Amino acid sequence: MPHLNDVTRGRLLYGGDYNPEQWPEETWHEDVRLMERAGVNTVTLGVFSWSRIEPAPGQRDFGWLDRLMDLMHEHGVGVVLATPTASPPPWMGHLHPDTLPRDADGRTEWWGGRQHFSHSSATYRRYAAAVTEDLAVRYAGHPALTLWHINNEYCTYDFGDEAAARFRDWLRHRHGTLDALNTAWGTAFWSQGYGDWAEVLPPRHAHYMKNPAQVLDFKRFTSDMLLECYTAERDIVRRHTPHLPVTTNFMPLWAGQDAWRWAEEEDVVSVDLYPDPRDPSGAQSGALVQDMTRSQARGPWMLMEQAAGPVNWRRVNHPKPRGLNRLWSLQAVARGADAVCYFQWRQSRQGAEKFHSGMVGHAGERGRTFQEVERLGADLARIAPHVSGSGVTADVAVLHDWHSWWAGDQEGRPSREVDYPGVLGAWHRALWQAGLTTDFAHPVHDLSGYRLVVVPQLYLLTDAALDNLLAYVRGGGTLVCGFLTGVADQDDRVRPGGMDARLRELFGIRTLHEWWPLEPGETAACEGGLRGTLWSEELEPDGTADETVAYRGGELDGLPAVLRKGRAWYVSTLPEPGALRALLARVAAGAGVRPVLDGLPDGVEAVRRGELLFLLHHGREPVTVDVPGTHRDLLTETTVTDRITLDRYGVAVLRP
Amino acid sequence: MPHLNDVTRGRLLYGGDYNPEQWPEETWHEDVRLMERAGVNTVTLGVFSWSRIEPAPGQRDFGWLDRLMDLMHEHGVGVVLATPTASPPPWMGHLHPDTLPRDADGRTEWWGGRQHFSHSSATYRRYAAAVTEDLAVRYAGHPALTLWHINNEYCTYDFGDEAAARFRDWLRHRHGTLDALNTAWGTAFWSQGYGDWAEVLPPRHAHYMKNPAQVLDFKRFTSDMLLECYTAERDIVRRHTPHLPVTTNFMPLWAGQDAWRWAEEEDVVSVDLYPDPRDPSGAQSGALVQDMTRSQARGPWMLMEQAAGPVNWRRVNHPKPRGLNRLWSLQAVARGADAVCYFQWRQSRQGAEKFHSGMVGHAGERGRTFQEVERLGADLARIAPHVSGSGVTADVAVLHDWHSWWAGDQEGRPSREVDYPGVLGAWHRALWQAGLTTDFAHPVHDLSGYRLVVVPQLYLLTDAALDNLLAYVRGGGTLVCGFLTGVADQDDRVRPGGMDARLRELFGIRTLHEWWPLEPGETAACEGGLRGTLWSEELEPDGTADETVAYRGGELDGLPAVLRKGRAWYVSTLPEPGALRALLARVAAGAGVRPVLDGLPDGVEAVRRGELLFLLHHGREPVTVDVPGTHRDLLTETTVTDRITLDRYGVAVLRP
Amino acid sequence: MPHLNDVTRGRLLYGGDYNPEQWPEETWHEDVRLMERAGVNTVTLGVFSWSRIEPAPGQRDFGWLDRLMDLMHEHGVGVVLATPTASPPPWMGHLHPDTLPRDADGRTEWWGGRQHFSHSSATYRRYAAAVTEDLAVRYAGHPALTLWHINNEYCTYDFGDEAAARFRDWLRHRHGTLDALNTAWGTAFWSQGYGDWAEVLPPRHAHYMKNPAQVLDFKRFTSDMLLECYTAERDIVRRHTPHLPVTTNFMPLWAGQDAWRWAEEEDVVSVDLYPDPRDPSGAQSGALVQDMTRSQARGPWMLMEQAAGPVNWRRVNHPKPRGLNRLWSLQAVARGADAVCYFQWRQSRQGAEKFHSGMVGHAGERGRTFQEVERLGADLARIAPHVSGSGVTADVAVLHDWHSWWAGDQEGRPSREVDYPGVLGAWHRALWQAGLTTDFAHPVHDLSGYRLVVVPQLYLLTDAALDNLLAYVRGGGTLVCGFLTGVADQDDRVRPGGMDARLRELFGIRTLHEWWPLEPGETAACEGGLRGTLWSEELEPDGTADETVAYRGGELDGLPAVLRKGRAWYVSTLPEPGALRALLARVAAGAGVRPVLDGLPDGVEAVRRGELLFLLHHGREPVTVDVPGTHRDLLTETTVTDRITLDRYGVAVLRP
Repeated sequence: MPHLNDVTRGRLLYGGDYNPEQWPEETWHEDVRLMERAGVNTVTLGVFSWSRIEPAPGQRDFGWLDRLMDLMHEHGVGVVLATPTASPPPWMGHLHPDTLPRDADGRTEWWGGRQHFSHSSATYRRYAAAVTEDLAVRYAGHPALTLWHINNEYCTYDFGDEAAARFRDWLRHRHGTLDALNTAWGTAFWSQGYGDWAEVLPPRHAHYMKNPAQVLDFKRFTSDMLLECYTAERDIVRRHTPHLPVTTNFMPLWAGQDAWRWAEEEDVVSVDLYPDPRDPSGAQSGALVQDMTRSQARGPWMLMEQAAGPVNWRRVNHPKPRGLNRLWSLQAVARGADAVCYFQWRQSRQGAEKFHSGMVGHAGERGRTFQEVERLGADLARIAPHVSGSGVTADVAVLHDWHSWWAGDQEGRPSREVDYPGVLGAWHRALWQAGLTTDFAHPVHDLSGYRLVVVPQLYLLTDAALDNLLAYVRGGGTLVCGFLTGVADQDDRVRPGGMDARLRELFGIRTLHEWWPLEPGETAACEGGLRGTLWSEELEPDGTADETVAYRGGELDGLPAVLRKGRAWYVSTLPEPGALRALLARVAAGAGVRPVLDGLPDGVEAVRRGELLFLLHHGREPVTVDVPGTHRDLLTETTVTDRITLDRYGVAVLRP
Repeated sequence: MPHLNDVTRGRLLYGGDYNPEQWPEETWHEDVRLMERAGVNTVTLGVFSWSRIEPAPGQRDFGWLDRLMDLMHEHGVGVVLATPTASPPPWMGHLHPDTLPRDADGRTEWWGGRQHFSHSSATYRRYAAAVTEDLAVRYAGHPALTLWHINNEYCTYDFGDEAAARFRDWLRHRHGTLDALNTAWGTAFWSQGYGDWAEVLPPRHAHYMKNPAQVLDFKRFTSDMLLECYTAERDIVRRHTPHLPVTTNFMPLWAGQDAWRWAEEEDVVSVDLYPDPRDPSGAQSGALVQDMTRSQARGPWMLMEQAAGPVNWRRVNHPKPRGLNRLWSLQAVARGADAVCYFQWRQSRQGAEKFHSGMVGHAGERGRTFQEVERLGADLARIAPHVSGSGVTADVAVLHDWHSWWAGDQEGRPSREVDYPGVLGAWHRALWQAGLTTDFAHPVHDLSGYRLVVVPQLYLLTDAALDNLLAYVRGGGTLVCGFLTGVADQDDRVRPGGMDARLRELFGIRTLHEWWPLEPGETAACEGGLRGTLWSEELEPDGTADETVAYRGGELDGLPAVLRKGRAWYVSTLPEPGALRALLARVAAGAGVRPVLDGLPDGVEAVRRGELLFLLHHGREPVTVDVPGTHRDLLTETTVTDRITLDRYGVAVLRP
Repeated sequence: MPHLNDVTRGRLLYGGDYNPEQWPEETWHEDVRLMERAGVNTVTLGVFSWSRIEPAPGQRDFGWLDRLMDLMHEHGVGVVLATPTASPPPWMGHLHPDTLPRDADGRTEWWGGRQHFSHSSATYRRYAAAVTEDLAVRYAGHPALTLWHINNEYCTYDFGDEAAARFRDWLRHRHGTLDALNTAWGTAFWSQGYGDWAEVLPPRHAHYMKNPAQVLDFKRFTSDMLLECYTAERDIVRRHTPHLPVTTNFMPLWAGQDAWRWAEEEDVVSVDLYPDPRDPSGAQSGALVQDMTRSQARGPWMLMEQAAGPVNWRRVNHPKPRGLNRLWSLQAVARGADAVCYFQWRQSRQGAEKFHSGMVGHAGERGRTFQEVERLGADLARIAPHVSGSGVTADVAVLHDWHSWWAGDQEGRPSREVDYPGVLGAWHRALWQAGLTTDFAHPVHDLSGYRLVVVPQLYLLTDAALDNLLAYVRGGGTLVCGFLTGVADQDDRVRPGGMDARLRELFGIRTLHEWWPLEPGETAACEGGLRGTLWSEELEPDGTADETVAYRGGELDGLPAVLRKGRAWYVSTLPEPGALRALLARVAAGAGVRPVLDGLPDGVEAVRRGELLFLLHHGREPVTVDVPGTHRDLLTETTVTDRITLDRYGVAVLRP
């Protein structure tokens, strides 16, 4: 199987999306000069070039791309070649309105932006296959070509009639019979029994709440349709270049795709990552996505897009302070990335993203941004031989599942204040702050390699997942589960008792009487000063727990907030950050899991990759870190004994 | 005429919506066992069973319902049988898209939720009549059947083409000629003169503000169309079971129906009531709806739906603390209910409302919720012989009119901060806190039986209503009117002077110069420490008032905020809660109206029903209430002399 | 050329929109009696009379209007006659659905409100031309007719198919070839290259951000289409009455029209002005619109609409306190108005604006509002002979350009907190508070007559505009530019370096590294206690500036916030109000610009018009103003020596 190592060959990839069709050819030569200065070895071409490549139906214009591929090759820059199918040319929607998606309200999504294609449109798919085929034929043997990039940030949906037909096909495949669908969707509720497949629709605008199982299946369907679009193009390029790996770039923790499932269909897993430079949790939220992408890749991965400076889609778009781009880039490498790439090489002067920064900004090579890009290129080249291809090991796994997220995100639920990514982030943040390196895993993955498994929230757990968790604990693993876990089965059917009986037995819970969601800002006091947020529960224990922390005061006074039975913990609220961090540190210690480095100052992150120890300082004031023994700092090429001082946003890459 | 007493026969009805088609038949037997334990004597069947009863157009499947009706009868449970017409089966929208409503933006409301029927669709009405007919034929003689329940929570609208045609018919009937319509709608404004009936439309999406008289008539039309749907089905079941009463369940203080008008078409008035357990005004807002429903029923009424625990449609859905379900249920009985029912008997495991609680929750019979349901069943059985069929007497009437609400709720009004239900609630709350039992009445009702009539706000008053108010005061009654009363006539035409001249004369007002609405949080200081909120007025008195309270400071300094002329009071602002309570207590005392019990502690509600005195404690700390004389507490079967202590959420039902 | 002076003939026009078709004819006679009392000499007829004039397609009913014209003439009231084309009769949309606009989501805008016409509809335009023609023919010779008023508050848009066709025509005219359009729109970005004109559409609903150049051109197109509607009607009436001036009433600082361009097509410039009586900046925001309208008119102008009391379209609509209507009306006269008119003469009793005040309110002639209207009429008559036709001179010009506003208001920009009218208002407010009289000018206007030119923000500057600014400074002018100026060219293409190189050179800026937009409430500290809001910039000076104010603290510590190089100032943030006022006062003083009057108390506005000095007191407490020398106050007919005391909302009109 082709692999990212075939592309990196001992290097770290460095570069970005390159859209030279926006520039006159004289700028191309300026570009290669600056790429050389910055140490860029990789660019992504063609992401949004469909109307250039196919200016009219069936026509082809490859000349400009031929010249570019040659130019890149001449200058030693590898090309990640994209299929241009994320943004069809205007002629397509004009000639084939059936290729345009409809939203739940029936509104057409017109061209003029991007991603105005219906994943279900046979016409769209036919055109996409044809242009992919021709692209693959033309460049299969080109020496610059290193990796295929299919489409871009798959993220669309369609509620129109052709999608409805495809949805019915998908449902037939999933459920077999209409009876089975009626059962799975619980259509006895609100008189929704389907008597004919033709009656089944996407969950379009309705008078009141929609059927949540229908909504769940529609999300599954949407992910699968997009995946079909991906695999169809992947299979075409594979036929022509079986030796070259294929990827598509994910958006970080994006609701629209089951990325576990998708990653299995990729040779290389890549992701786009845009934390807000102003977000105090920016570094940790980046780490979360990096950990998740590494876990999906089961090894090195690509940071396909990030911003060298500000983005342009937030309400207020903050630039990156001096040093932050370098810090966050090296953080990605520490957490397993073998590629540090950007959207985009040269900032556009026109179009909807002209205020999204580039490696070469509007200020050009004199700009601070480019100067920092240049410095980072040198840093990456310096550490690449020691890091490329190596792995990150974790003793802790955090479980995450898109289907559970989708099912839990329904209209009529106990509390719409419960935000799944927020809960997941809060748990990951506590582990990150405790200095624990974590993988992510799917609930049916083999967990036996982990000392500690953390379930922030898995509202939906299939029987297989439940079996897996129980087996993990039986096998000696330590498990911590957060609230709203194990509530629903694969069809979003509430399990008897409101929480799976096996789980209740595992934690020592007899009866789940009521959920007591908390209002924003409200907290639930518990023993030992712990305060819960967001949620609390009226639980009746069965007397088998080894340890409990009780609620104090209020309606739940004296009832258990946290239960431990053997190695299984249940946490019925979201503890405040400090308390959650302390709890997890304690549980981890009990499971024999140690932080990467003891006694780290706040804001300093330590990660081991291969034999290297990365120290990343997220603060602005200099800080000294104890690092027992003697190391070589690969970035400064100095020797470090026992301690090292990191300046603002400082990084050290230490080799023993 | 059939009557609720025919159903209750000396009992209090207890039970709820029962949707057994969601469960296997073995669960039905479990259900009857638990119903027996809980003292359930009534269930509502068939509310959402259309697709089960009529799985394909014209087909019928009654077997399952036959078995259920028999099972209920065997176990002594009476059946409220619903026509299933609130949620048509998917085949209907699929085969007959004309049955689907359109909103003002032209969006179709698809199936997948509920209430996706157009009240104006002839096709829908034909199918609804047919299934109603067959249901009535089949169960007319069944011994379990006690009451008909038509549709469910009528609440829809339609702006589509068939509704437009019906709207024109309705307008022809109301206005007679197009000239009359042009006059009533004031179409000389903004060039809206209609020259042909075919030009008249529902008030669809427009560039700027819509014609308020058109909007008002469309609201009237919508209420009337839904009422036609109701009466059509009612007439069918009446033909088959003239001895059985008919109801449809209202939503509480729902904007979409003129419930005064509707109640006249019902044999039994029923309502659904869902105060937020966290709302500090929850008890009072419940009392408001109970008072209003009792007034519509002119006697005992049914609490058709409430929640035994949390609902699932708020942002954060709070469960009911221990005792609250019992307290609020007995409050309904105190205020005239002869039925305490729930949505629903058994909490669903699937569908959009699976997190809406049931009498039997996900935790089953071991759950706290069911245990409290069981206790309440025993309480109801204990008091039923003393209370069923008896009445509540009030000396105070609060006037309320949907047409006035509708007219006042227009886009371009002096202040969109004025929220009619909020104002109505504030006045009712002041009366409730003052311990005064109140009826509600329509402005043309006979008011002569009341010592005090309170008009929180009747923006629109017809000539008949004005005559009625004036006659009431002439007849010796005491009247208190809040601001924005008597502004518009039946067509939302502003009366000369901005407020009806007869009303101004009644209160001693010469000229209404300007309304001075207040910003949120802003108050208007007045003499005696009174502070007004929401609104103030620049009034020039005519010198005939007997008493005034003046504004102090600001532009209105010295002008009257409150005027009294004889027994007629005008309050040109919304006094802060304490001030409004004090004002109304004083006016009531002057009118010879006494609280139910003197010296009640805060949070304790006292209501007399028949010969019984209900004491309801809405607080959590024990409280002692002075009750002169000796009573028997029917709940504890103890004797109470001079005083009684009520625990958290405690209730006493005292018989002299 | 016909001119406003032909209408005023030494008077100030006083009156308002008059909609007698809403009233019985007996009310007309009441109206003329009250007009006489109030000194009304002008009314606007026919603004929304289309359905009255043309009750069915092609029919005409002029009789009522004949009688009104005659009645007005008999009573010496001049008529501003409106074409009724802002609100087509219902029959038009019914018979010709192609006349109805569609929004970006595809929703139809139905009749029932107003402005439900597509500017692009050939059918609409044909009917509009016909009714205009017949109106002009009929009243061309009528002695009451003084001025034509075309349509009303042009403000619509259309995204439908006929508008799309017109948009393509417009684009062909602007860009010539499809290649040129592709270049101007930067369609190489996101694969938007157009291969056929038929593919080009209005910027309809899209999946993600739209093409900003397409959006910009669509705004230009919309303004131009509306202008075509205007000029078509104007040309018709001109043909019949070449001696009569023509106007259309603008909305104040309205985004939808390039009013610079429009004003060139008008004989008289008129505007509608509705500051919130509660807005502490109400007086200044009024002054801004007055200054802008005067600048567009290049002389006297008409205040076509204001409110005598409250409007009805805000969330809370506040009345005007006693004296405020007079104060703000005289402010308009001070700033060049020769007409003080209202919407409307008599407040409606029906329709969407029945709670919008009139000169005669619901309270009638006894109402405070009418009494104040009467007083103002006398005041205007008193000063008219001294003021009518005279001019206002300003040494300061504030530059404003709709195209720059449109271009800057895109989705994906650095900060959506930057609100163009807010920034413009902040700069004008600082100048107003500093007592400096200002004109507005377009960036290509001749600026040589001004000592100081202020550019609050011109994101888009054409080459011609840049040349003009540079020439102005070269010619000895003083220029102050705010942030985000000179970023884009005429196609919204970012200029190299992120800010035009000539501008950077002008201010002494070498490199614009990054924009650092600020969060709401965040400030940027600078030297000398200045604090910036909203925005800051990372600028590298080139060492040629004569003076800088540096940022203090944060990432920008030590970098210039303000630069001065010779007579050119650049301000890279929005200074807090006091600081901006102080800065501009200092710069103005340096440019030789003095306030109208020195040492004015806060809240007192001084303006010179012709030989007169207007003093306007915007506070409620009496205040004394030093006015050196002896003047005659035309309002009180008293002599003022050295000082004058102004009461609450007091005004003096002083003649030397």
